[in-house]
Amino acid sequence: MLTEKLGQRIKSLRTEKGLSQEKFALFIDMDRTYYASVERGKRNISINNIEKIANGLNISLEELFKGL
Amino acid sequence: MLTEKLGQRIKSLRTEKGLSQEKFALFIDMDRTYYASVERGKRNISINNIEKIANGLNISLEELFKGL
Repeated sequence: MLTEKLGQRIKSLRTEKGLSQEKFALFIDMDRTYYASVERGKRNISINNIEKIANGLNISLEELFKGL
Repeated sequence: MLTEKLGQRIKSLRTEKGLSQEKFALFIDMDRTYYASVERGKRNISINNIEKIANGLNISLEELFKGL
């Protein structure tokens, strides 16, 4: 499922940066519990929240969706 | 704003295909009024609806977000 693939991709990019879920969620000003559920693919996340995450990872949306 | 840029991109790709809003919305099984508001950038659209649109346009999400 797309939300799961996206969550895995986000998790992988976050861990590459050496950040915990907690620190990253704090950094992008997103509720930690909500963010954790996004990484688990449990949320039908909106474009504005996807953008927030992409900005936090310092990548474009195109890059975020690469290969998904 | 991202929702506006995405809406313009979707509209441009749809018109390239020579489809009306009405026909395209029907094709992807999305409410026509909702779809129209997405093209106008008025919706914080979810990933599942973005996927529906990308599938209807027969392009990847990576392609849809190219340059946005």
